[in-house]
Amino acid sequence: MAGNTFGRILTLTSFGESHGVAIGGVIDGFPSNVKIDMAFIQQQLDRRKPGQSSITTSRKEDDTLEILSGVFDGYSTGTPIAFMIRNKDHKSHDYSHIKDVYRPSHADYVYEKKYGIRDYRGGGRSSARETIARVVAGAFAMLWLKNFDIDIYAYVSGVGDVYLDEEITKVDKNKIDSNIVRCPDKETAKEMIALIKNVQREKNTLGGKISCVVEGLPVGIGTPVFNKLHADLGSAMLSINAVKGFEYGMGFSGCESFGADVNDKWFFDDGTIKTKTNYSGGIQGGISNGNDIVMHVAFKPVATLMQDQDSIDKHGNEIVIEGKGRHDVCVVPRAVPIVESMAALVIADHLLEYFAYKNSRF
Amino acid sequence: MAGNTFGRILTLTSFGESHGVAIGGVIDGFPSNVKIDMAFIQQQLDRRKPGQSSITTSRKEDDTLEILSGVFDGYSTGTPIAFMIRNKDHKSHDYSHIKDVYRPSHADYVYEKKYGIRDYRGGGRSSARETIARVVAGAFAMLWLKNFDIDIYAYVSGVGDVYLDEEITKVDKNKIDSNIVRCPDKETAKEMIALIKNVQREKNTLGGKISCVVEGLPVGIGTPVFNKLHADLGSAMLSINAVKGFEYGMGFSGCESFGADVNDKWFFDDGTIKTKTNYSGGIQGGISNGNDIVMHVAFKPVATLMQDQDSIDKHGNEIVIEGKGRHDVCVVPRAVPIVESMAALVIADHLLEYFAYKNSRF
Amino acid sequence: MAGNTFGRILTLTSFGESHGVAIGGVIDGFPSNVKIDMAFIQQQLDRRKPGQSSITTSRKEDDTLEILSGVFDGYSTGTPIAFMIRNKDHKSHDYSHIKDVYRPSHADYVYEKKYGIRDYRGGGRSSARETIARVVAGAFAMLWLKNFDIDIYAYVSGVGDVYLDEEITKVDKNKIDSNIVRCPDKETAKEMIALIKNVQREKNTLGGKISCVVEGLPVGIGTPVFNKLHADLGSAMLSINAVKGFEYGMGFSGCESFGADVNDKWFFDDGTIKTKTNYSGGIQGGISNGNDIVMHVAFKPVATLMQDQDSIDKHGNEIVIEGKGRHDVCVVPRAVPIVESMAALVIADHLLEYFAYKNSRF
Amino acid sequence: MAGNTFGRILTLTSFGESHGVAIGGVIDGFPSNVKIDMAFIQQQLDRRKPGQSSITTSRKEDDTLEILSGVFDGYSTGTPIAFMIRNKDHKSHDYSHIKDVYRPSHADYVYEKKYGIRDYRGGGRSSARETIARVVAGAFAMLWLKNFDIDIYAYVSGVGDVYLDEEITKVDKNKIDSNIVRCPDKETAKEMIALIKNVQREKNTLGGKISCVVEGLPVGIGTPVFNKLHADLGSAMLSINAVKGFEYGMGFSGCESFGADVNDKWFFDDGTIKTKTNYSGGIQGGISNGNDIVMHVAFKPVATLMQDQDSIDKHGNEIVIEGKGRHDVCVVPRAVPIVESMAALVIADHLLEYFAYKNSRF
Repeated sequence: MAGNTFGRILTLTSFGESHGVAIGGVIDGFPSNVKIDMAFIQQQLDRRKPGQSSITTSRKEDDTLEILSGVFDGYSTGTPIAFMIRNKDHKSHDYSHIKDVYRPSHADYVYEKKYGIRDYRGGGRSSARETIARVVAGAFAMLWLKNFDIDIYAYVSGVGDVYLDEEITKVDKNKIDSNIVRCPDKETAKEMIALIKNVQREKNTLGGKISCVVEGLPVGIGTPVFNKLHADLGSAMLSINAVKGFEYGMGFSGCESFGADVNDKWFFDDGTIKTKTNYSGGIQGGISNGNDIVMHVAFKPVATLMQDQDSIDKHGNEIVIEGKGRHDVCVVPRAVPIVESMAALVIADHLLEYFAYKNSRF
Repeated sequence: MAGNTFGRILTLTSFGESHGVAIGGVIDGFPSNVKIDMAFIQQQLDRRKPGQSSITTSRKEDDTLEILSGVFDGYSTGTPIAFMIRNKDHKSHDYSHIKDVYRPSHADYVYEKKYGIRDYRGGGRSSARETIARVVAGAFAMLWLKNFDIDIYAYVSGVGDVYLDEEITKVDKNKIDSNIVRCPDKETAKEMIALIKNVQREKNTLGGKISCVVEGLPVGIGTPVFNKLHADLGSAMLSINAVKGFEYGMGFSGCESFGADVNDKWFFDDGTIKTKTNYSGGIQGGISNGNDIVMHVAFKPVATLMQDQDSIDKHGNEIVIEGKGRHDVCVVPRAVPIVESMAALVIADHLLEYFAYKNSRF
Repeated sequence: MAGNTFGRILTLTSFGESHGVAIGGVIDGFPSNVKIDMAFIQQQLDRRKPGQSSITTSRKEDDTLEILSGVFDGYSTGTPIAFMIRNKDHKSHDYSHIKDVYRPSHADYVYEKKYGIRDYRGGGRSSARETIARVVAGAFAMLWLKNFDIDIYAYVSGVGDVYLDEEITKVDKNKIDSNIVRCPDKETAKEMIALIKNVQREKNTLGGKISCVVEGLPVGIGTPVFNKLHADLGSAMLSINAVKGFEYGMGFSGCESFGADVNDKWFFDDGTIKTKTNYSGGIQGGISNGNDIVMHVAFKPVATLMQDQDSIDKHGNEIVIEGKGRHDVCVVPRAVPIVESMAALVIADHLLEYFAYKNSRF
Repeated sequence: MAGNTFGRILTLTSFGESHGVAIGGVIDGFPSNVKIDMAFIQQQLDRRKPGQSSITTSRKEDDTLEILSGVFDGYSTGTPIAFMIRNKDHKSHDYSHIKDVYRPSHADYVYEKKYGIRDYRGGGRSSARETIARVVAGAFAMLWLKNFDIDIYAYVSGVGDVYLDEEITKVDKNKIDSNIVRCPDKETAKEMIALIKNVQREKNTLGGKISCVVEGLPVGIGTPVFNKLHADLGSAMLSINAVKGFEYGMGFSGCESFGADVNDKWFFDDGTIKTKTNYSGGIQGGISNGNDIVMHVAFKPVATLMQDQDSIDKHGNEIVIEGKGRHDVCVVPRAVPIVESMAALVIADHLLEYFAYKNSRF
């Protein structure tokens, strides 16, 4: 109930504070006999890592993953996979200046009120460093899903007012990592990078949008009422720090659409049932229909600014928070693997549900 | 796991097919000693009911609620509250013509593939009639929440391209039911009604948007990681039929925003900590901050059209689906109480979590 | 959390008070396309029914089951199966005399303290009438399990100090219903019946023991740590009214045993791996080993006596509770199908878990 | 679903193999602001530790606990508490000789069949070393419960055929640790110790019984149907390695009892409602009644013997397993803190449920 466990059959329990001893998690319900490709997991961590390019925070973190259990001779054993990354130098910094401070649009105040105590160092549990656990677990899930030719990829589709052309309904997934902003269109990527650098100079921050696609999902994944596939995907994405919105298929544009324009018509394509369009985003009634699952996630601008901001402290003083430190201007380039990971956890969980019943027919 | 139970401490288990014997649910974990105002529950059902106005389906359904357990002498007892509404005349119609048909943007095909069998009559379990269970349970939750001065209301903020002026950040909730489209602004409501009637004449359908506000929530409701308050609200809304998107606070507009513009600055207002703006939508780090919770939900156009549509059947035939029957052109007027209900279930569940720990301090 | 839902993948949500409108439940996660043999379900209900023989309460209840959803044309559809049995004449009796009374070894007082309100009529929610929901759901589970040749049966192995001879390690399951006490040994059954009738004449009540066997379970059912197969079975049995103890395999006799005597030795039987003995009760490390699952459940004597008892009421008065009404002297003959049902729910839930992963190997 | 998470509001997720990198767990939902007495936690670990006395295994393990998150400046923060104990020398031993062997009454074979792979070193996940996570989490729970004057203690009440006199209904809890077998009666303890040493000489093993008491629990803890307090306690105890049975209150002796003898009669004691006897074991209808909760847990003899045993290997060979290594003859002295811990986790979880609703009255 305290909300640090995600999933139903396949679960991730996440733990750790930004400047505590370690960040990590426990994956339970992971299938056995899956070959664990540590290089792939590290690669996903590297895509999330600070300091990876000129448009992310310059803060260096050396995320060395340690697997504590559940993997034997390179294969998963079906028992819980615990993992952690130690926080380096977690005792070295002096955070007493932010001890009593409530930063604008940060969770300091609500933690204080809810728990009566908080680990204030670097945001503690509310730090985006928590997403490390998601990326590791998501990478495990992706390793399993690959065996069924299910592929999940995300990319940056918006930075500020620079959006990927909406006409592009299918991007080239191989081009996502061809640039540092992770937008698969070269020209748009250039504009996005320029915009981020500009905002960086102005000591401001900026929002952005990530799109995510699940390819290769069979028909029948998802459940029809409260745990509709897109409801679980939405919950997963909205649980990521800084996310303010989620849509799938036609999304918010559906508000303005007419039924005759956006109904996805069935047809036979060489004996296979398909739809002519994919306004539904690959899901009908909460269940996958064989098309690509397509969704979009809105990220707000980073709340920590490099400029001074007025605020208050817990003692009732009005204060000024200085703009210092090293922070991202726009989180979306680093959030791409996080979005992929949350999608992978949802898909893997639902695939296990699907298998439970597929086998239940006698 | 099959997804017909919603919530963690307070749960709703929903059951029933559109044309089966009955639609209903079981509410578990409902606090005892709550006075059950049946008139209020019926009023919420009436707001959801077909046939309520000239812009909803003309189909008449007489939703007579029967409480089967958990209420004694007008008060909740703390035991499960089961309820149901019998489906009238559920045997009278002949549905054999849609037995083998896959309607565009409906769930017929995916149910068939997932379960190998489906109750095809009127959409079966995928019918929006299932939302009756949500409205009843949500009304129960609202009855309890009222004791803590927590008020939840939703309203129509968009129909097609007619939106409620974005400048209106706070509507007059008493005006929501002053018109049949449930938009609290008289002029906008008129436009929306005219648009719906126009689309009705064209035998087409139309999407829309509902906004929802939670007032009076104390600071500290919600949990910080996977079950962020907005993640649970998003999951709740996305589980409603025809919903394609969810956003809270600045939502998708956050993609284009700058941090310096949308950070909510803290200040002391007569000793109370408040924010000058509410771009955060009342939630920080997944936990309520004392402001109104504000969210928006996107509904796609109804998939059932009054015009002919090409489709296929399960035998491999190309067919034409005739546009007949009585269906809504735009669901949002009737979906207002459903949105309120799902919000109420999430808030009540999290309030119980809050109470569990509030009392845990010694 | 309020504890009216049982199971994880396959769940039963139970509802209803003894003298409320109805008793029933919702089964979620039930496999689709299972042929629903209503006669079998009714037969299990009849075995639980009061008034069935000279050694049960003479109270007549006509339990007419109504399926509300989830079954279509005689087959399960994969959607929630809701069912109920209306309580006849639930308004006719006057229960005001027990309104404020705390009966010895009944739950009146604890309900009053926990909830501040209770439906006092006939025990309300704490009535053993609640087990109807278990028997219905268990019968559904058994119908599905039969397709995999998994058979579950229970029998009375003790009434007072009359026990089925411990030497009998395997009973003839076809003889269970050959007598009214449901003990498969004719001579022991006679003794048990005589004892019950004797105690009945003395207006006293008596405890008893039920044993339960699961046959045909493949190797690998169950999970190894908190949800060990026997931990879930124990939880299931202990949740039945009047149960005071649970053991499996060697059970409490294991306290006095030596390892060399009770280790189950593996051997090859025509290429199949088997054990020479079954002290383990068919489970090792929480997982089925291919042997019969064998367990025993202890029932205390019925708390309602036909003789006067001293007690108190909520107003602080010492009172005498008169011994009147029609009650069972010993519950075990009627509890046999309840034990079978709870076992079936656990086994079906774990079988779905097993299937989820069996299919996860690629 | 994979069963490595225990509890509902307060949860423990356990991980780790006997000879993997580490054993540990994550406690979620732990109340904030609880002072964490590390000495108490270590003391509980020391009571579980091998090598602690002449009647336990002589194997030395230096269990050094590391807290990874959720504790700040000596107090719990309300965020997940992750902890681990590294396994020393986990690479040093050669376990290849048991790689393919199925030991009698061990879980080797069922793991192999269920997962198709297993970490065979020292029992892997099925090793009783897993109970370290339970003891740590249980100690945390006990630290919180102490604030409400709820005290939990267990003691050895049986070793082989030496039982603590049944007449002793209330032991002196301060004497439990006055001897190495943890039986609070001096003379009985002597007999037990002598018996264990005798069996040790015979290279055999022996079962035993542990009793557990919860003192100071208010009325109203527990829920009435599937999660009856004793059902959850039973599930908790049965999930401990080597446990074969659970009973509470009159337990299995209830099978032979008459209602008039074992009904607990209510009376007023200085205005407080009490019962004259406690055959119910402190629980009625699944809910605590203000009396001590009393339960008993049966442990089978350790399966690993110091004598040779016939068995088979996975290749179809008949083999002899040599009796070597250092193992316990009887687990109950070391299992006392494990039983206490599982009880504490259940009680803490239910106390949070109780608080959720206690505060829900307005």
